[in-house]
Amino acid sequence: MDDRSTTVRELMDLVLRFSRERDWEQFHHPKDLGICLAIEVGEVLEHFRFRTDAAIRGDLEDPDRRRAMAHEMADCLWALLRLADVCGIDLAGALEEKIALAAEKYPVEQSSGRADKYTAYVRSGEEDETGEESSEKN
Amino acid sequence: MDDRSTTVRELMDLVLRFSRERDWEQFHHPKDLGICLAIEVGEVLEHFRFRTDAAIRGDLEDPDRRRAMAHEMADCLWALLRLADVCGIDLAGALEEKIALAAEKYPVEQSSGRADKYTAYVRSGEEDETGEESSEKN
Amino acid sequence: MDDRSTTVRELMDLVLRFSRERDWEQFHHPKDLGICLAIEVGEVLEHFRFRTDAAIRGDLEDPDRRRAMAHEMADCLWALLRLADVCGIDLAGALEEKIALAAEKYPVEQSSGRADKYTAYVRSGEEDETGEESSEKN
Amino acid sequence: MDDRSTTVRELMDLVLRFSRERDWEQFHHPKDLGICLAIEVGEVLEHFRFRTDAAIRGDLEDPDRRRAMAHEMADCLWALLRLADVCGIDLAGALEEKIALAAEKYPVEQSSGRADKYTAYVRSGEEDETGEESSEKN
Repeated sequence: MDDRSTTVRELMDLVLRFSRERDWEQFHHPKDLGICLAIEVGEVLEHFRFRTDAAIRGDLEDPDRRRAMAHEMADCLWALLRLADVCGIDLAGALEEKIALAAEKYPVEQSSGRADKYTAYVRSGEEDETGEESSEKN
Repeated sequence: MDDRSTTVRELMDLVLRFSRERDWEQFHHPKDLGICLAIEVGEVLEHFRFRTDAAIRGDLEDPDRRRAMAHEMADCLWALLRLADVCGIDLAGALEEKIALAAEKYPVEQSSGRADKYTAYVRSGEEDETGEESSEKN
Repeated sequence: MDDRSTTVRELMDLVLRFSRERDWEQFHHPKDLGICLAIEVGEVLEHFRFRTDAAIRGDLEDPDRRRAMAHEMADCLWALLRLADVCGIDLAGALEEKIALAAEKYPVEQSSGRADKYTAYVRSGEEDETGEESSEKN
Repeated sequence: MDDRSTTVRELMDLVLRFSRERDWEQFHHPKDLGICLAIEVGEVLEHFRFRTDAAIRGDLEDPDRRRAMAHEMADCLWALLRLADVCGIDLAGALEEKIALAAEKYPVEQSSGRADKYTAYVRSGEEDETGEESSEKN
């Protein structure tokens, strides 16, 4: 399997099958899977703690460290796929929607080369009325 | 776009293009993207705080709440895709590897219907020698 | 040491001394300490994953599990104390301030017995103008 | 209130009183409070995302930003104090214990000026037999 040839649904089915074979679906409530995700993100972050960006780049050259990092990221994906699946949410569709919303909030000409939040250059009154916290700044 | 027809790489490219158009790649260090991921997970969790599993199921029936949750999960995916991409990590391949390792740690006959960690039924001495924290229990 | 007789500053000094003795202050940037905090919270959450509230209550009766949970919470406090200390922030003063703000947002008569966010009962237009995300709902 | 004159228990009582006045104790299960803590940590991290250590130092000179950061840290403390309180855990005692354990794992002469985990300089076989994940590296 690789990212070029594998669909999101194929990965969802892979982790679903793993759970079904073990009769684990009964434990997979959204709240618990959200907690799983937070735990796995903590384990990704262990690789970055007290490391400079340059040191992390170096770690990625080391096959063992690189593999350990890849596995922690895979665990995050695992939890996220199960979470979306038990909620019946289509991740690709949701991401496409979110990108479209972000493109409105961060027009290219205003946001170019700026890492601050869109609220820094939105004129007062233009704030999106949903009150939804904008966090698509990735 | 939907999960059945979209590959992981297509989603990675979608978020990469968004960043390139805004000249944001310069900010996308692994450490910062790991931080992004933790922030987005916190926003997913806001939907679960003080809610029973039954109440969350009910929330998912409400189109606005469902959409808000889908968007927060999409933000997590966004951060994770950028993180893997800047690290040059193939997520599908890493997940397939991790599943294979988890299948060894959680044999069907021993783990069936049990939510505890594999260390609960591994005999002492059989502990995997990598010392890698097992967190694939999703 | 116990909670009744120990001040926040005494605990801050305890962890500061530990770091100084090991010449670790050089690593203690706010960003890294924030990452530490996220990691430690993940380790607290490991004790709650796939557990009902009743099961967690039971775990707290078991001395070993209780001690393990206490230690993970202590790790969170450790990271938070170092973070506040390197930032020169007085935690007790900040908490007192935050409680006063929360008391305005959550008037007793309106919020009594309700777990939802203050925004659910604030009339439109009364929203606090700071735009500060309210998250004191603990 | 300030860190020098305020005990941990006084702060615990402050947040307990706030909850009692609003009849919120019914919502304060350990699992939900752990989730609260993860959410609040995410909000602290928002201040560090895409910022260099130097930029964060600068932000701390700005009174408004500094206050916003202090409030997010206070929210973390709030969640942690409620969590420990509902679990009946004495945080100061737990921290003192954890520091003593960490002092054994990180002897001054071996750990001085090193940011890596104790497992990097523990000889094989000396690994602590509790299997407890060491995360006191703050």
